[in-house]
Amino acid sequence: MVSEQIINELKSIVGKDNVFTSKADRICYSYDATQQSFLPDVVVHPGSTEEISRVMKLANRELIPVFPRGAGSGFTGGSLPTRGGIVMCTERMDRILLIDEENLVATVEPGVVTEHFQKEVEKLGLFYPPDPASLKFSTLGGNVAECAGGPRCIKYGVTKDFIIGLEVVTPTGDIITTGGPTMKGVVGYDLTKLMCGSEGTLGVITRIVIKLLPLPEAKKTMLVLFDSIDGAAQAVSSIIRSKIIPATLEFMDGRTLDCVRQATDLEVPEGARAVLIIEVDGDREFLDKQAARIAKIIKPLGVVETRIATTPEESEALWQIRRSVSASLRKVNPNKYNEDICVPRSKVPEMIRKVDAIAEKYAIPIVNFGHAGDGNIHVNIMVNKKVSGDTLKAEGAIRDVFKAALELGGTMSGEHGVGIAKAPYIPLEITPEAARYMKAIKQALDPNNILNPGKIFFDDEDFVAE
Amino acid sequence: MVSEQIINELKSIVGKDNVFTSKADRICYSYDATQQSFLPDVVVHPGSTEEISRVMKLANRELIPVFPRGAGSGFTGGSLPTRGGIVMCTERMDRILLIDEENLVATVEPGVVTEHFQKEVEKLGLFYPPDPASLKFSTLGGNVAECAGGPRCIKYGVTKDFIIGLEVVTPTGDIITTGGPTMKGVVGYDLTKLMCGSEGTLGVITRIVIKLLPLPEAKKTMLVLFDSIDGAAQAVSSIIRSKIIPATLEFMDGRTLDCVRQATDLEVPEGARAVLIIEVDGDREFLDKQAARIAKIIKPLGVVETRIATTPEESEALWQIRRSVSASLRKVNPNKYNEDICVPRSKVPEMIRKVDAIAEKYAIPIVNFGHAGDGNIHVNIMVNKKVSGDTLKAEGAIRDVFKAALELGGTMSGEHGVGIAKAPYIPLEITPEAARYMKAIKQALDPNNILNPGKIFFDDEDFVAE
Repeated sequence: MVSEQIINELKSIVGKDNVFTSKADRICYSYDATQQSFLPDVVVHPGSTEEISRVMKLANRELIPVFPRGAGSGFTGGSLPTRGGIVMCTERMDRILLIDEENLVATVEPGVVTEHFQKEVEKLGLFYPPDPASLKFSTLGGNVAECAGGPRCIKYGVTKDFIIGLEVVTPTGDIITTGGPTMKGVVGYDLTKLMCGSEGTLGVITRIVIKLLPLPEAKKTMLVLFDSIDGAAQAVSSIIRSKIIPATLEFMDGRTLDCVRQATDLEVPEGARAVLIIEVDGDREFLDKQAARIAKIIKPLGVVETRIATTPEESEALWQIRRSVSASLRKVNPNKYNEDICVPRSKVPEMIRKVDAIAEKYAIPIVNFGHAGDGNIHVNIMVNKKVSGDTLKAEGAIRDVFKAALELGGTMSGEHGVGIAKAPYIPLEITPEAARYMKAIKQALDPNNILNPGKIFFDDEDFVAE
Repeated sequence: MVSEQIINELKSIVGKDNVFTSKADRICYSYDATQQSFLPDVVVHPGSTEEISRVMKLANRELIPVFPRGAGSGFTGGSLPTRGGIVMCTERMDRILLIDEENLVATVEPGVVTEHFQKEVEKLGLFYPPDPASLKFSTLGGNVAECAGGPRCIKYGVTKDFIIGLEVVTPTGDIITTGGPTMKGVVGYDLTKLMCGSEGTLGVITRIVIKLLPLPEAKKTMLVLFDSIDGAAQAVSSIIRSKIIPATLEFMDGRTLDCVRQATDLEVPEGARAVLIIEVDGDREFLDKQAARIAKIIKPLGVVETRIATTPEESEALWQIRRSVSASLRKVNPNKYNEDICVPRSKVPEMIRKVDAIAEKYAIPIVNFGHAGDGNIHVNIMVNKKVSGDTLKAEGAIRDVFKAALELGGTMSGEHGVGIAKAPYIPLEITPEAARYMKAIKQALDPNNILNPGKIFFDDEDFVAE
């Protein structure tokens, strides 16, 4: 528990209006997209790097855990205050400090909402590609901490690929800068990339230097329905083999289409067992030609129907089928475990077959959709927690899904991170030697295990044992 | 000194034919491109990851420093055996293990020569863009350790951007794998990117998983001579602003052109004070249009002459002017300090002006060329070490150049790393807090300070003091 005296000290650091201790307020910061909830002792909203540094020093002095938080939209519990203590929310630090059109670089505070940033740079003809599904409310600080992905990553890369510098408050309260606004830099270890995806365990991100691209002139969307998942997967390979890297290559499997067919009035032909949404972007005059080439390439692969948008509105309409998935799934079963495994692109059909077998083994519906171009499949295990045994079944299925992905040379998580949700499964993917290496880094930088403790690796008691 | 008993133990690990102790042999592994030389006690050529692991364990047991080495082509002494001990050369581990055309991924051993790898993937219509000047002899392991760059980085990124997984022998001899063959992965800390550019101080790279791209169909080269460096810099900005990111945007300043004019019979018009070599790549039918657009954009910026290649041979001829620079410089003065500072792209003209002032202050010739699109300038300080005072002048100039780059928001090194050459200047760029963070990582992973000690940070005695 955090004492009254500490609360007062926190108020003197961040201002009394930015310290929250009422139960109602604390509940608001107790959960994330995992739907799990852990009540913090106190929530602080710092307004500056210096304030964060002072909070971290106080927390180290008093050995109080600190849980950094953006918008709390994470899928693995990365920001959950699992041990009470202090939730440090960066939502007040939401300024875009610089958009440098000359150098294609921006500097932002961590609390800037992803979509807001994208729109601001697009007004200037610039482009920040990473597009996690939560972009309307997720923050850039959270995106960096989790290394967020999204559909456009196949062509443009993940969050990490756009982060070239950071200001960070270390777990012990030092303020450091890493990297900077240059396109290259090899002086010292790359702490920038180390911080990306470290899930708030190695430092609190207080400023972000972002590399931008020129905004593509136009985009063109195609929706292609296939009679089998193999046809769709073959299409992905063939497109890439023909040297076209589309901006998105999203897929949905037959079970997902069944859900959409049942839950909506969107037109999904009966014979369709997979869909690809293919978007190409670039110079306008080039897109028609590219779309035509794609149509030709995929034609022999069991295409049931091809729909091509010619206006932004038609493009939006094509995306409707993808956007309707979440709501459609809810009709299957009320509770969803959304795992985001990633396998080498060519292994997608094999992975889907393995998932189908797992669904059969546990007799629960599992539907797959996601980023086919990356081999990044969102495996949705649909259960009803109120039905006895369903949760246990889901846990068995999740473990089997992870094992299957790893057998195919894949990973348990392409986008969501580990947090607490996947921490129990870490030994499946990370060898004890590699884990020791990672924990050694954590221990070196956070000797008191103050910052977001118990994330990624549950057993941080191992720190003592080492 | 390494005892006879240790030598025998090394022979039993890597085979007696792969341990070298004669002075002649040791001299061969005593230097790199810095022209500095430090004699190792013994050179080993391991043939496998397991052998490297065993050597590292032996070295830890006996507290013998180990210096990993690829081709020894580095510019900052990263591979120099500054404290005797063992040079561990990876040149025997030179197999390309896999080129996966389906997934655009390759797996290689560290000793594969960069250009050999590029040619092998190009045979299959694939593309590995990083192109350090040393690519004809540098190894991929060395490229990863130093995070090598090259002209094509403006469009495609640096070595790190293509490395998605590694097998590494840790300083204490554990074998770990990091990342893997998937395009996304966020399970645990990103040790892959941490290893990239860590200059062989955090682990010995034994296997590399590389992301590939489809090979662009064609390229088109233009050489443009400008009447001022400002015109050339303005051209770089204008091209990028117009949403064209060329594959290369190389520049040479007026002083470099003077050298070329004096030393070769290449045609360099008198009024030319800067040159850009602009290469665009992609679909053939698109390149003419792009080249025409570029020509139109840069026309008002003081263009003295534009040369456009229409065949690969003509393209080679245009690159001659750039390739002749090294030899031309030698006629100015015999010794060259080649520093590779990097500034935000828009600051290139200001940086060149600062360098000109530094050249005047110390009364030594300094010529600049490099990767204008990245703001990555190779500042060549030309001295004659046999002339009394010249070395001291160069050292003063180097410090001033670094300070100038940092004042402009840049870095001391865009490509070459720190090694021992830039280690004395580290405090100019890395704050004590950030250095402490980096050293804590080194200390955590290499408690005996066995692996490439004294690189990046000279003062590793600080490990004790911390």
